[in-house]
Amino acid sequence: MIFSSSLLENAVNQFAKLPGIGKKTALRLVLHLIKQDASEVANFSEALSLMKEEIKFCSRCHNISDADLCNICSNQSRKQEILCVVENIRDVIAIESTQQFNGVYHVLGGIISPLDGIGPDQLTIDSLLKRIENENITEIIFALNANIQGDTTIYYIGKKLKAFSVKITTIARGIAFGGELEYADEMTLAKSISNRIPVENYINAGN
Amino acid sequence: MIFSSSLLENAVNQFAKLPGIGKKTALRLVLHLIKQDASEVANFSEALSLMKEEIKFCSRCHNISDADLCNICSNQSRKQEILCVVENIRDVIAIESTQQFNGVYHVLGGIISPLDGIGPDQLTIDSLLKRIENENITEIIFALNANIQGDTTIYYIGKKLKAFSVKITTIARGIAFGGELEYADEMTLAKSISNRIPVENYINAGN
Repeated sequence: MIFSSSLLENAVNQFAKLPGIGKKTALRLVLHLIKQDASEVANFSEALSLMKEEIKFCSRCHNISDADLCNICSNQSRKQEILCVVENIRDVIAIESTQQFNGVYHVLGGIISPLDGIGPDQLTIDSLLKRIENENITEIIFALNANIQGDTTIYYIGKKLKAFSVKITTIARGIAFGGELEYADEMTLAKSISNRIPVENYINAGN
Repeated sequence: MIFSSSLLENAVNQFAKLPGIGKKTALRLVLHLIKQDASEVANFSEALSLMKEEIKFCSRCHNISDADLCNICSNQSRKQEILCVVENIRDVIAIESTQQFNGVYHVLGGIISPLDGIGPDQLTIDSLLKRIENENITEIIFALNANIQGDTTIYYIGKKLKAFSVKITTIARGIAFGGELEYADEMTLAKSISNRIPVENYINAGN
């Protein structure tokens, strides 16, 4: 791409570094911003630099936070004894958006995946074990992706947790809402049968 | 989407204002930036604000420019007497990228489209006519999109240009390279037949 302005080129190249954004999309975004009010673009630019400079990670659960403790950990109306273990911040946002969970989180910062070179030491597992030792936690819910890496991580951490008297659960795997049986893969269908639940629990779920 | 950090939320909302970027994509982009070096993000933020503050439009051709005249207009090795009329800056970049055009441009800033409320007065047509009066232009090439709006614009400007002794052409409409005849629409195929060219011209084109 040949540009008549180095300022334009520079802005396009910055956008094109973002994942999933090619040069043409980057150009479209930059030309959109050029048409906006100066204050709009200044806000955008400021939001970016503020975010990078000021953002912290919660010292307890490793979630993104504005302060030392994130607003989930510091919210005393949430059940601090129920802890949901997730892979990353995106999963926290996804679960929070359901408004069905009123406990706290622990963000692992990844998932055990030897093929990608990620071992247990790179995750916040030690910090999780310390929390279970020091806090009064009664239940740990694993909310990890339903794949080999997720299951490996559950297995690894589950073994470490045997030393503690804490209830360990995982979110249900089964047929997704709106999913059709005949198109479900065998693994999912098999799990959904072996982990079947009483209909009264199903009807009352979420209440 | 429920965020645990207002800095994060603010950055995501800024990205989500961009065309074609939803909340989930915005979150992915912001989380990517959080993982980058602080200097990377500072560069991004600076490129954005510099672009908006410093960018100019060429006083002659209305292209985006770093100075009063863009580097195409001020390049004396280009043929200043051949003028290519385009709808917007994106089209300038597209044509420049072919490296087949060595003249200069005139950016209309839009196309006549009564349905969208865009009339001739909102475009840089007056400025184009002044250039033809004052500069020594011998050929005007219309490089507009091949649709009703493009044809209307060519017709409107073409009528105004009758007063001047200048050669007026339009880029060829026909079967796109790699296109198959049987899938071409009738309009394109009809135009490609009525505007057929001698094979020797075709073979020598671009030389």
